[in-house]
Amino acid sequence: MAEVEEILEKDVSRRSFLKTTGIGLGVAAGALMFGTGIAGAQTQGGTVAETPLPYADLDPEEARIRAHAAYFRAGCAYATFYAILSMLRDKVGGPYNQIPLRMLGYGRGGAASWGTLCGTLNGAGAAINLVASDADTNKLLGDLIGWYTITPFPSQESDNVAAVKGYTYDAKEYVTAALPTSVSNSPLCHASVTSWINKSGFAASAPERAERCARLCGDVAAKAVMMLNEWKAGAFVATFKVSDETAGCLSCHSSDQIGKMACTSCHEPH
Amino acid sequence: MAEVEEILEKDVSRRSFLKTTGIGLGVAAGALMFGTGIAGAQTQGGTVAETPLPYADLDPEEARIRAHAAYFRAGCAYATFYAILSMLRDKVGGPYNQIPLRMLGYGRGGAASWGTLCGTLNGAGAAINLVASDADTNKLLGDLIGWYTITPFPSQESDNVAAVKGYTYDAKEYVTAALPTSVSNSPLCHASVTSWINKSGFAASAPERAERCARLCGDVAAKAVMMLNEWKAGAFVATFKVSDETAGCLSCHSSDQIGKMACTSCHEPH
Repeated sequence: MAEVEEILEKDVSRRSFLKTTGIGLGVAAGALMFGTGIAGAQTQGGTVAETPLPYADLDPEEARIRAHAAYFRAGCAYATFYAILSMLRDKVGGPYNQIPLRMLGYGRGGAASWGTLCGTLNGAGAAINLVASDADTNKLLGDLIGWYTITPFPSQESDNVAAVKGYTYDAKEYVTAALPTSVSNSPLCHASVTSWINKSGFAASAPERAERCARLCGDVAAKAVMMLNEWKAGAFVATFKVSDETAGCLSCHSSDQIGKMACTSCHEPH
Repeated sequence: MAEVEEILEKDVSRRSFLKTTGIGLGVAAGALMFGTGIAGAQTQGGTVAETPLPYADLDPEEARIRAHAAYFRAGCAYATFYAILSMLRDKVGGPYNQIPLRMLGYGRGGAASWGTLCGTLNGAGAAINLVASDADTNKLLGDLIGWYTITPFPSQESDNVAAVKGYTYDAKEYVTAALPTSVSNSPLCHASVTSWINKSGFAASAPERAERCARLCGDVAAKAVMMLNEWKAGAFVATFKVSDETAGCLSCHSSDQIGKMACTSCHEPH
């Protein structure tokens, strides 16, 4: 019963209850069943520990499928968060079962449709932070964002997911054709969507645009999982570097701004 | 014992354990103590329900103090999320105790220091989404973001918090003086910080700049709580409208972009 005693040690109020009711061993066994089953996941007062939660290797292609489908339930940020967290619920369980997956819905459309940070990166960032230290989160998410800004989306792999026969979800519009790709040169929803609209000719309200964002959810969720798997194996190396042009800007503008976005997306070179 | 039975009904694996161990009533009583105490916060399989969690009126000025202090622990997004969630832990408890507060750390510096969405809005958005429906979250967060873009920060109220004698936190640098204010005209960290740097003359690395962001955490957390209190009372009305200039742009550019950011921050009028 060492584990039971350890759990009880962590909750003073529960011990007080034990003393006043005298229910004893039966309570202790009940307590064990409500534990997370994950060492270190609970702390004083019955609150979840403020340390990274356990990570288990995940399948990037399963993440791609889940994120793609989830986009149509509650948008892009929910989609990547849901994909990673639902898989961690399946493989690890415990504390992941108590984190509401709908929580990231607000990130849709670059946060309540304001067009700022692409929700796919927002949802992935929250998932990464749950399993990684703050320092590692900065490296992993920083590199994921950089990768996002220079990669053509949606990928052929995500086109394939959307084209698979028999794979269904409750989308109002269901586009199966391969889609044009674009490179955003920016982590902002606004710039990312517009770059694709300019390239493809579809309007923001077109089902193809929604499908493009759904496939982008798949791409980002799969990449985030690949990076996390590498990180867990001790093999992750950040590879993104800002462009020579942006590096040139930052050589003077390191003290008057925060950020790594490509400068000439908004500013004239001078 | 109706509540105990209801809790047990919700966890099939726990009931199986009961059957195999025969521990019985003692277990049931123990189970009650691990319950969330919040009706509807758990669902089949022992996972938290995917519905908004209960909200209780919070004190905006307490939120301001907590967010300001929390900035120095793990940055801006953590700060606003922590302020609201820690108060909901105090007043409601239950499911809030199982959501890791460190999860929003990734939002710092506009997401891993990329300078995108201001972390104060990111953390507040997550907190709002936990208590509000997706539709209400869009309204509340959308209005909070709009308010942010047109409001001079940091406020005198947050200056006062920083100046209070005896209020201490473990900041490496502790600036108590009133600070210059700026209006960001943007929800982006990059633009918000630069607008303040241009106005104040302090560098990004200055302790005054960090203190400015800490006070901004206080301002956004307090405003978010005020909005949530109004919303809970059925009295919330969204007030933000894009500028006439931006409305003019959007009259043509509604189909080729997503977002509400002020257009001429990045684009030349044409």
